[in-house]
This record gives sequence, structure tokens and C-alpha cells, in this order.
Amino acid sequence: MPREILYLKIARIIEDQISSGTLKTGEKLPSIRTIQKIYNVSINTVKQAFLELESKSLIESKPKSGFYVSHSFHSKLELPSVSQLQLSQQEKTPEDLISKVFNTLTHKDFTQFALGVVDKSMLPIAKLNKGVVKVLRNLEDSGTGYEPAQGNINLRRNIAKWSFTWDGHLTEDDIVTTSGALNALFYALITVTEPGDTVAIESPVYFGILQMIKSLGLHIIELPTHPVTGISIEDLKKVLPKINACCFVTNFNNPLGSCMPEENKKEVVHLLSKHNIPLIEDDLYGDIFFGVSRPKPCKAFDETGNVLWCGSVSKTLAPGYRVGWVAPGKFKEKTIRKKLLNTMSSPPLYQEVIADFMEHGRYEHHLRTLRNTLYNNCLHFKKAIEKYFPENTKISNPQGGFVLWLELDPKIDTAILYDIAVQYKIGFAPGRMFTQHNRYNNCMRLNFAIKWDEKVEESLKTLGLLIKQQLQ
Amino acid sequence: MPREILYLKIARIIEDQISSGTLKTGEKLPSIRTIQKIYNVSINTVKQAFLELESKSLIESKPKSGFYVSHSFHSKLELPSVSQLQLSQQEKTPEDLISKVFNTLTHKDFTQFALGVVDKSMLPIAKLNKGVVKVLRNLEDSGTGYEPAQGNINLRRNIAKWSFTWDGHLTEDDIVTTSGALNALFYALITVTEPGDTVAIESPVYFGILQMIKSLGLHIIELPTHPVTGISIEDLKKVLPKINACCFVTNFNNPLGSCMPEENKKEVVHLLSKHNIPLIEDDLYGDIFFGVSRPKPCKAFDETGNVLWCGSVSKTLAPGYRVGWVAPGKFKEKTIRKKLLNTMSSPPLYQEVIADFMEHGRYEHHLRTLRNTLYNNCLHFKKAIEKYFPENTKISNPQGGFVLWLELDPKIDTAILYDIAVQYKIGFAPGRMFTQHNRYNNCMRLNFAIKWDEKVEESLKTLGLLIKQQLQ
Repeated sequence: MPREILYLKIARIIEDQISSGTLKTGEKLPSIRTIQKIYNVSINTVKQAFLELESKSLIESKPKSGFYVSHSFHSKLELPSVSQLQLSQQEKTPEDLISKVFNTLTHKDFTQFALGVVDKSMLPIAKLNKGVVKVLRNLEDSGTGYEPAQGNINLRRNIAKWSFTWDGHLTEDDIVTTSGALNALFYALITVTEPGDTVAIESPVYFGILQMIKSLGLHIIELPTHPVTGISIEDLKKVLPKINACCFVTNFNNPLGSCMPEENKKEVVHLLSKHNIPLIEDDLYGDIFFGVSRPKPCKAFDETGNVLWCGSVSKTLAPGYRVGWVAPGKFKEKTIRKKLLNTMSSPPLYQEVIADFMEHGRYEHHLRTLRNTLYNNCLHFKKAIEKYFPENTKISNPQGGFVLWLELDPKIDTAILYDIAVQYKIGFAPGRMFTQHNRYNNCMRLNFAIKWDEKVEESLKTLGLLIKQQLQ
Repeated sequence: MPREILYLKIARIIEDQISSGTLKTGEKLPSIRTIQKIYNVSINTVKQAFLELESKSLIESKPKSGFYVSHSFHSKLELPSVSQLQLSQQEKTPEDLISKVFNTLTHKDFTQFALGVVDKSMLPIAKLNKGVVKVLRNLEDSGTGYEPAQGNINLRRNIAKWSFTWDGHLTEDDIVTTSGALNALFYALITVTEPGDTVAIESPVYFGILQMIKSLGLHIIELPTHPVTGISIEDLKKVLPKINACCFVTNFNNPLGSCMPEENKKEVVHLLSKHNIPLIEDDLYGDIFFGVSRPKPCKAFDETGNVLWCGSVSKTLAPGYRVGWVAPGKFKEKTIRKKLLNTMSSPPLYQEVIADFMEHGRYEHHLRTLRNTLYNNCLHFKKAIEKYFPENTKISNPQGGFVLWLELDPKIDTAILYDIAVQYKIGFAPGRMFTQHNRYNNCMRLNFAIKWDEKVEESLKTLGLLIKQQLQ
């Protein structure tokens, strides 16, 4: 029996058990290994079955624990819709809207759901500071000199070691350090594209990626993206003849929170390698998973050096440090040359601090706490939204990262709602920011990596109320 | 009498006095103010006359002192030639040569004339370290958060204050901080050009600028550049209809060391503003002058916001910090947006350290020492080259910065000479690196910001010997 059907069969068996009440809401599922033995199938088949169930919001994973029958199964709120493929002429992006949202980010008295970073209360600032002082003592020429363009050797070594958490076999030689993940994407893009080329991306997509690609004189195709399983491979196949590169956030992407199943990752890597289309993979959320293990990036299945794997610590440790990296595969030499031309080298200090943090187990320790905090925040947010928002609100079901994507009643224009919410000192990211087309106007992205308290809940209540008012 | 003729007349009077021996080699010239009074002309006219004399190597300036009848007047070595305008199809740049030279830069046992940075012995490393520790204590969230894309406010404020050293009237609001001057040029270029546009630059030109412009899909016109007075305005006028932007290193450019006279700067600013062609000005060497005062940048004469003035502390304080800036004039908003898309924000720590260093007079103090060291090194180098190199060697006469440009016998190919010199553990930058055309093959750039000692003199002697051997 072909594997595809096998995993669907197992998924259906479990789904039946949930429907019938054999498995109850909140109950823990048997472990992957147990199910594997019961049905005599491979671990991957069980994992795929679980992903299928997750994508239907039937089950959900909890950090360091396992899979549970989902509470949201009985939620009134559906998943957001999958977008349609649009190959029309690209329209003007709402740069003014982006600027407007950015301008409120520094307002300290706001409840700020619009940010794309983790609240500072969740960052190990004291430990990082100790690291700075320690590193400064030992740094060659105190970091005043140029380092090789490829980047600090200690950081590269530790990223390579860290790649073992997802079965990566990178060496220090495979990695180029950058000024954050966005900067890594930038180098990757200018390495594999020429102005006038076309790049396929997810939709909705983080506006920083969208704007950067546009600013390089590249054309964009936004691929339909499932809120749980990521880009549609069928649609990717359709546009293959038109595209010169892909740029995907494969694990807990921003804003949908989708995570491509392993089988999809394999297929995409194989497909793009066969067609000689480079895959730029932004894996900056991969370490913030709610499930039992870190999802592998596409890079784990890259046999031809066709994947440029990008990452950073901006979402987990210190956004302001601007420490990121790219493992550009077969494009490495060209990437190093691009970096050399762009900025010569990166300052060594923060690279050494992060390397030190990783090397002594502090990163792993910090991530364990951070994942739990974020997972709990996610539950708080979802519960509050279910309570306070209109019943026809659709909501994403991220298994990692820290953003929620909401699809509201089609009558709501979140750009207008934004102006109203700002008067109540509430900020969020309107959906229109996340596309080049005129859509997602009834959507919004909420960051749940802020400290959960009564004020936050009150703000969600207010937001829900404002939406209801708009509907009347 | 028109001013142009007036300054030439005064220059000729002084030249006559030098030729006749009335003014002797090494003798100090009357001050600018004295000459101004004697001939009843403006200060600018005297300054222009002095520049004219400097351009003929008849006089030279000394730090904190004034102008002297040049020793090199009686030097056997001539100035390098002015390049010819070439409008032919651009040729392949010698990227392999650049990579080869870069690969030897980390060889610690080399006498390294190829570097573009000041030796660490000339940097105030201990004071900078103190600054880091001090700043770290007071930094908001210890620098883990994002700052506004425009850059750290304290640094911007201090750069604005510092601009008063060249009659600038910048405010903190005019400045965008960057990751070094090269990165500033990058943002300036992507702000004012589109792929396919044409940019006029000096020739020879720093290979980093050349390669960066090329990598952005831009075409390049290399303008003939006088080793003392910089680009030829006549040739600039000729190519005006073909170009979309200019990118000039106006003060002590790399590698020629030329410094545009004030009158030329005014004319260029006026000309480009009239034709609506943005001027990207790289002024990263302006603070390292050997004369009595800092030469003004073109930005000082910019009335329309058409000049994007770039700078950094990479040549004076700490290359590895990657702290630079651009004052983009009327292009500011677009530049900020480009930076936001490229890397979001810059880490605040080193920006605060540099701001603190400037604010408390430590920068000015350091520069005074640095200028004297470099000026003395320049004299040592020129003397040694005159002594050990063939008589038909031509040499630049920089009044600031820290590189010398040598034009050797046309039979010498410095790319071949480089391979031989490397065997003697001597590095330099072959001329071919500094152009997109097949020229300067008999030229080389030497960095004199290395600690002068017997080993360095011995290396120059060896280099001279190797050249003489090649000529036989």
C-alpha cells in the first residue's frame, strides 16, 4: 500500500476515535512510537498522520510532552482560508500603511500586537550582558579590526554544531554570518537572482520579505499557502517555468504560522533542485516549536547544495544584536563576495557573545523556558479571541513562533480598524501589509510574545468590541 | 580681473620665487592671511593658488603648521599620469586578483602594504574598550532591542555636531547610520539608482566601490582623475547626458590621494544639482588631513539636498566596529526605507561608544596624533621609494589619507610582480584592481598606515629591487 494512503488511513482511525469520544478533548494521544508499533508502520508515517490531524486542528502538540486532542477542535473559530493564486500584474504595496504601523512601535503606553519580536521580559538580558563583558576581555584587538567576510569562526562553529538539532551536517565552513536573518535573505537574494527575475513566496508573507524582493527589482509570485501545511506544491509546480528562485519560511512562518510537513519539504527540495531553481529558506522560527521536537528545515534534505538556509537569534535572544547567518550551499563563494562588497565584514563582539551563549548550553536552556512561555501565551490569546471576537472570526493554529493570523468578516477593513484601535492605544498589523495584491483587507496579525496580563486581555476585549461595532 | 586668472597669477609669482631660490626648499611660506593682505585678494583666491602650487608638487602642507616649499619639488619622481576617458564597453574586472590579494591579508608575517586600514598600533583600543564597558551599563535593554532604522540618536547628534569642523550645518535628523562607509555608499546607490543606470566615478577608484556598483547591475564611467585635484570637470560635463549619478571620494581619495579644490567642489555640486544628477560623496578620509584644516566636502556647498554625504570611523578609529553614516539630503526618507528593508536596524552598542568618544573630545585628541603619525609615515615612505625604486617611478603626493599610488615603468606588470613579492612576504594592491578597464597594469597602491620600522624599510627596498630585476 503506498505510504500516502497509509498515513491518511491512520489519521482517519484517530479522527474516528476523537469523533466517537474514545479520545477525549485534552486527552493525551499515545506516543508516536506506540502508534508505530500498533500499526506496524514507519515513524514518518505516524508523524504525517499527526500533521494531517494537526492541520485539521483535531490534535495539538505541547512542549516536552506530546500530542493531545485539541481544545480548539470544539472551538467555534475556523482556520483562515487558503489564498488563491494570482498571476496578475503586481499592484502597489501599501508602504504608507507599513510606515504608519512602524511609527507607533515606539509608543510605550500601547498594547502592541504589531511587533515582530519577543518582549524583553522574555529575553536573558543579564546573562547576555555577562557574555559581552567576558568576550570583550578576550577579543583580538578588542574587536577593532576586520574579521574575514565569511564571519566570526566561533559563531560559525556553534551554528554548525547547533544544526545537529535538526539532523543538519553543516560545518563551520558552510556558514556565512550576517546582520540578522533579513540581511541573510538579502545576501541570498542578490546571490541567486538578477533584477527582472521572478521569486515565488508564501502568501500572506512577512512584509519585510515582500518589500525587500520588490526593492531588488524582482517580480513576485505569491503562492497559495495553507495555514497549517504551508505552500501549495501543486501551485508551485504550475509556476515553475516562470520563477528563478523561491523564498519560503518553512517552519512557523510569519504571519500564518504554518509549518511544512516533512514530506512536503522533501518534495519541494527535490522539485526545485531538479529544475535548478534555488530555494532560499528562512528558518528563523524553527527553534521556537511547541511540539516534541524541532521541525527539520528543507536544508536537512538538500543533497545538491541548492538550499540557502537562513537563520538568526533575533526571534529568540537579542533582536538588537543583529546576528544572523546563511548556509548558502553551492552558492557560498558568491554570497561571501556579495557580503564583502556590501559591508566588508561584521563586528565580532556580538557574534562571539552568541557563540559563547550557544557553546555553554545557555541557548538551549533559554529556549526551553521561552517555548513554554510562548505556548501558554498562545493558549491565552486564542481563548480570549474566542471569547471576545465575533463568532465568524477565523484563526490560525501555529505550532510554533509567536504570531496569530486572524481572518475577520469580509466587511471589516483592518486598515480602517487600525486607525480606530490606535485611539484606544492598541496596535496590530493589518493584513494588507502582507501581500502585493489587494487582499487580506479583513485580516490581521497579532504578536503573542508579549507579557500576558489583564491589560493585554482587556485590549483583546476592546479589539473584539471594535470589530463588532464595525460590523453593525 | 576674473578670479580664475587672479589665483593663477599669484601662483606664478610664488612659483617664480621658488625657482629663483627666493623661497628655499623646506622654507615656510607666508600665511594665507599675509598673502591675502599683500595682494589684496580673497582668502579663497590664495587657497586656490596654493592648491595650484600643491598640484605641481611645488609646495606642501604640514599638520598644524602651514605650507612649505616642497622637498619633492627637487624629487626625481614625477606625479602619476592622468588617466584617459574610456567610454568603450566595460570589461571584466579582475575579481580573481582581488580575491588573491584578500587571501593574503591575514598572513601575520607579511609586510602588508595592501591593506586599506590603519595599523592597530595607531588605534586608541584601551580607550574604546573603556567606552564599551561604560556604554553597556547605561544602554536601554542592554542593546537587545531594535532601534529606529534611522540609527542611534546619540551618534547622529554627534556626527551633526562634528560637521561643524567643515562648516556643515547638519542636524541629527539629517543623518542615517550604517554599517561602515561602504554600507553607506550601498544604501546611497540603491536609493538614487535603478539597475541599468550609469554612475560616474573616479579612475583609478577603490575596488570596493567599483565592484559594488557593478554588483547592483549599474554601468560605470571612469572619469579621468588628476592625482592632486581629482576628477576632470571637463570630462564630467561631456558625460552628463549619459549618467544617472556620481560617486566621488572628494577628499584624499583612494588610491590616488587627490583632494578636489574647493572651487571644483562648488562647480561640481552646482553642475550636478542643475542637471538633477545625485552626487554620492564618500568622505571617509576627510578627517585625516596633513594641512592646516579639514577640507570641506561637497556637502558643504549643497543647497538643494542633492548630495548624499557618506562617512565612517573605519579609517580613523575602529574598522571592525562597522560604524558609518550617510546624510542623504532630499533622499533621506527613501534611504531609511532601504535600510529598514535591508537589515531593520543597527546594533546600538558601538554607535553609542563612538558617540561617547566624539562627545568627550577623545576623537579630536586621537585624530591630532593620528594625523602626525600618518604624515611622518608618508614622508618616510616617499623617501624610501625615491631611494630604492627606479628613477622613472611616478608617485602621488597625498595631503591626507594613508595610501600612495605608484606608476612604474610601462614594462612592469604589477599583477605578476605581486606573485613574486608574495614569496618575499610582501603584499601590495596591484593597479589593475582599481579599474574596470585593462589599465593601471604598471601601477600599485601602498598603504603607509603601518608602523614604520627597519623591516618596513627593508621591504620597500626589496620591492624596489624586484621591480628593477623585472626591468632587466
